[in-house]
Amino acid sequence: MKIAIAQLNYHIGNFDQNLEKIFKAIVQSRNLGAELVAFAELAISGYPPRDFLEFDDYIDRCWASIESIAKKTENIAVIIGSPSRNKNVKGKRLYNSAVFISNKNIISVHHKGLLPTYDIFDEYRYFEPSTDFKIIEYKGKKIALTICEDLWNVGDNPLYTSNPMDELYKSSPDLMINIAASPFHYSQASSRKEILLENVNKYKLPLVYVNHVGAQTELLFDGGSLVYNARGELVQECDYFKEDLRIIDLDKVIEFESEIISSPFVSKIELIHEALVMGVRNYFHKLGFEKAILGLSGGIDSAVTAAIAADALGAENVTGILLPSQFSSNHSISDAKRLAQNLKCKFDIIPIENSYKSIENSLSKQFKDLPFNLAEENIQARVRGVILMALSNKFGSILLNTSNKSEAAVGYGTLYGDMNGGISVLGDVYKTEVFELARYINRNREIIPENTIIKPPSAELRPNQKDSDSLPDYEILDQILYNYIELRKGPEELKKMGFDAQIVDRTLKMVNTNEYKRYQTPPILRVSSKAFGMGRRMPIVAKYLS
Amino acid sequence: MKIAIAQLNYHIGNFDQNLEKIFKAIVQSRNLGAELVAFAELAISGYPPRDFLEFDDYIDRCWASIESIAKKTENIAVIIGSPSRNKNVKGKRLYNSAVFISNKNIISVHHKGLLPTYDIFDEYRYFEPSTDFKIIEYKGKKIALTICEDLWNVGDNPLYTSNPMDELYKSSPDLMINIAASPFHYSQASSRKEILLENVNKYKLPLVYVNHVGAQTELLFDGGSLVYNARGELVQECDYFKEDLRIIDLDKVIEFESEIISSPFVSKIELIHEALVMGVRNYFHKLGFEKAILGLSGGIDSAVTAAIAADALGAENVTGILLPSQFSSNHSISDAKRLAQNLKCKFDIIPIENSYKSIENSLSKQFKDLPFNLAEENIQARVRGVILMALSNKFGSILLNTSNKSEAAVGYGTLYGDMNGGISVLGDVYKTEVFELARYINRNREIIPENTIIKPPSAELRPNQKDSDSLPDYEILDQILYNYIELRKGPEELKKMGFDAQIVDRTLKMVNTNEYKRYQTPPILRVSSKAFGMGRRMPIVAKYLS
Repeated sequence: MKIAIAQLNYHIGNFDQNLEKIFKAIVQSRNLGAELVAFAELAISGYPPRDFLEFDDYIDRCWASIESIAKKTENIAVIIGSPSRNKNVKGKRLYNSAVFISNKNIISVHHKGLLPTYDIFDEYRYFEPSTDFKIIEYKGKKIALTICEDLWNVGDNPLYTSNPMDELYKSSPDLMINIAASPFHYSQASSRKEILLENVNKYKLPLVYVNHVGAQTELLFDGGSLVYNARGELVQECDYFKEDLRIIDLDKVIEFESEIISSPFVSKIELIHEALVMGVRNYFHKLGFEKAILGLSGGIDSAVTAAIAADALGAENVTGILLPSQFSSNHSISDAKRLAQNLKCKFDIIPIENSYKSIENSLSKQFKDLPFNLAEENIQARVRGVILMALSNKFGSILLNTSNKSEAAVGYGTLYGDMNGGISVLGDVYKTEVFELARYINRNREIIPENTIIKPPSAELRPNQKDSDSLPDYEILDQILYNYIELRKGPEELKKMGFDAQIVDRTLKMVNTNEYKRYQTPPILRVSSKAFGMGRRMPIVAKYLS
Repeated sequence: MKIAIAQLNYHIGNFDQNLEKIFKAIVQSRNLGAELVAFAELAISGYPPRDFLEFDDYIDRCWASIESIAKKTENIAVIIGSPSRNKNVKGKRLYNSAVFISNKNIISVHHKGLLPTYDIFDEYRYFEPSTDFKIIEYKGKKIALTICEDLWNVGDNPLYTSNPMDELYKSSPDLMINIAASPFHYSQASSRKEILLENVNKYKLPLVYVNHVGAQTELLFDGGSLVYNARGELVQECDYFKEDLRIIDLDKVIEFESEIISSPFVSKIELIHEALVMGVRNYFHKLGFEKAILGLSGGIDSAVTAAIAADALGAENVTGILLPSQFSSNHSISDAKRLAQNLKCKFDIIPIENSYKSIENSLSKQFKDLPFNLAEENIQARVRGVILMALSNKFGSILLNTSNKSEAAVGYGTLYGDMNGGISVLGDVYKTEVFELARYINRNREIIPENTIIKPPSAELRPNQKDSDSLPDYEILDQILYNYIELRKGPEELKKMGFDAQIVDRTLKMVNTNEYKRYQTPPILRVSSKAFGMGRRMPIVAKYLS
């Protein structure tokens, strides 16, 4: 039996467009001789549909789609993810299900048992966990069909007290199929493979794994659907960050006759770069936009953001605006210009001094002769925000946010100023990683001007300002932040690791007291295991380490 | 046996201050003759601690607090909520627990079985559901101790497949104690009583119910802790929206010798008003702020917001800023002034015309002679935002957001402009309810100027603009929104209810395409059963009804 793996980029709630893609993949699979095609978890609705799941109308549309698909399954079977209604009196009203359709009939519906409810996942918010697992028999083969997390309850300290695959194993299956929605972070593809291999080694069965690809606002799906034979050798692997459709010959996989392949090594920074490019591209195109605008400061964050946007949307669709104030240095302008020239993107210069002064004047009665401080610094950042948003509104482009994760963490940014934007490109990338991205972007030729990379970071909101006046060195800061945010180490653990006690306390206090700013920032493309946004939920009004 | 109910307002993560309150309540309870004092769910850490729970350090501090409390329990027992570690190999690492302490010893730890994971609740994100329930025996009485949701699995279509109180009932308890964190919405207190009464009637046992009081950012806890005798008669009820400590004589309750009381009727609008006043007050004071600033437009939203802020913080701590543009009508200024005079709050006038023109000038090369449109409207709103934030930064006040729920729903507001603020006071109050609030605020004398109430709503961002130019009448709009947002009715259901098909489609499209704006708005004080914010999680990049 030949099996097709359909790795597609869905649009949440866009049932017509998703169906069209699914129909095409069914036809293509059949044409390639497949007798079964597997689509990803909740493919029918896109993942994550979030609270759309609470609307009966949404669930009805999912099932109308399933019925349309059933009609297209002449001489082929389909496995596809969809929410389904729980018909029991007790429990949540939905299951997260995989529907098995064959020859125009919905044969069986299989429900997910383990519901990830941590980090960016909210599945128990919507779904009842299933405790009943049954095998699919098709063309003389027994298929153990599971959904994503159902295979993840391995290791010494498992998160769940039950294990669906253990139940299915009792029926002596011939292979495992796992349909998934496993979002990317820079070490996810390799941990995913480890988990999947653990299952293959435990059950000594081949595994067909089908993932999503594409960006859903902040969540980036990297694809990488794959097939292992029962020895844990890789025999098929879909593209990363691209739609793909692959065929395997199951009998050959079972008989160990398939060619064994290996995936190429891709560095962390290259992965992040590819993910961000896809994230920006999908954000714009799924929203129906082509054009991006951003402020260019001559600094590294806006330069890297512009380079990624040019890759994602085409340089002709990216406009960089230089917004110099009286505190901008000459190199800011020349570095920003040079970037725009290197990228071949549009740029324009709009000085903000007059607008800034006009606002300052309107406040002269209130501000009197109080000294210049944060208030005036923020006015500059906010005037830039007003001008960029005016251009965005006038010309139908989306403003890109250029904040990095280090800044976002410690609140080094102006709310309603440089924290504006439709999507934050670098908000999950620490400053030290932004430098690595810049070097990666320059791997073939200078795109980010060398001077942008080597000069000391500065917000340029007052004379001779440097980031290092207010913040610890980024090398130290980023390590503390990584250990606090990604690894959830507390203050005592950090101090025991050798970080300076005062710097630790000051850093954690900055992180925790700036929760209110992060609450109002744009969604952040997620590339780490713990990004600000839906996967990190903190109280605003609190007093902990602050 | 006398039992004390300690209904306190905790500060999340502020262990020292919470402990101080708890110690005081223990002393007071003992002085009043109580042999047992019950505190609310997760009282030790404040509710909801959210992802602080993922930090070992946070859990350690919770347990250090429990141990300090134990030392204070000479001649009294304590029941108090705290997270506790799950010592089993499998499952989530924490339980949501109630600790029973008596005479300086931690006697037993009881874990929550039913973990609300819907709307604003995320408990399965953190906690393992318990399946093991045991009775407390104390002073010759058997106590069935449960935690909040554990008593909520009643009715014809229960959300969970198990029922902790059914298990506890098998040990023939003498009373039920339920410690809770049940956040307010305007019909919550009455549904809460219905659910509690269902339990009393089912098990024929008296019930002591202990709730939180106070605001935790957007979540408002109304208190209303209470005691029912086994007949379901109310024999004790704590204050609403205030800390309180009450004593009951259990033997009298059991023997039906306690005085039966009844709670006074409070209208929906009065409840909302009290909740919002508490919400603003706690938001400011828990963050260590005294002073609020807001823009006064002469319209009803800013007027009602100012009146609530004056109630919450004292009029002397509220400053209203009038920011007229060339499009502001004369009545805007006179109505806003009159409001400030009625409230006795500070006010100031800062015209924005020059700043607006200065920004427009800086964009003249780009905007050329393109017609005035949304871009220019937004510049005005954003210039106001810059000026208000500058004052907030300079003088250490917090900007109040004045958007209402109808506007927030359909995206009728300017991001980084009038959508700015630290907290949104009316973001969960529909426009028609804002009018009701205004009438309520004026119940004794004119505070909101009559002209503010009767004039047609307008954003005044272009000549002769009215809300009704862009939006359906608020009477219709608010009904559609309520049915869509609170009741999750779909388009077909709404049309069947008799709403105009075109208006329904247009409204739902506006709601869904403006998700991106709401993502970046301040936290919204929650007074309805479905507020924008943590309890309503929608995809941004999606195409559903849009």
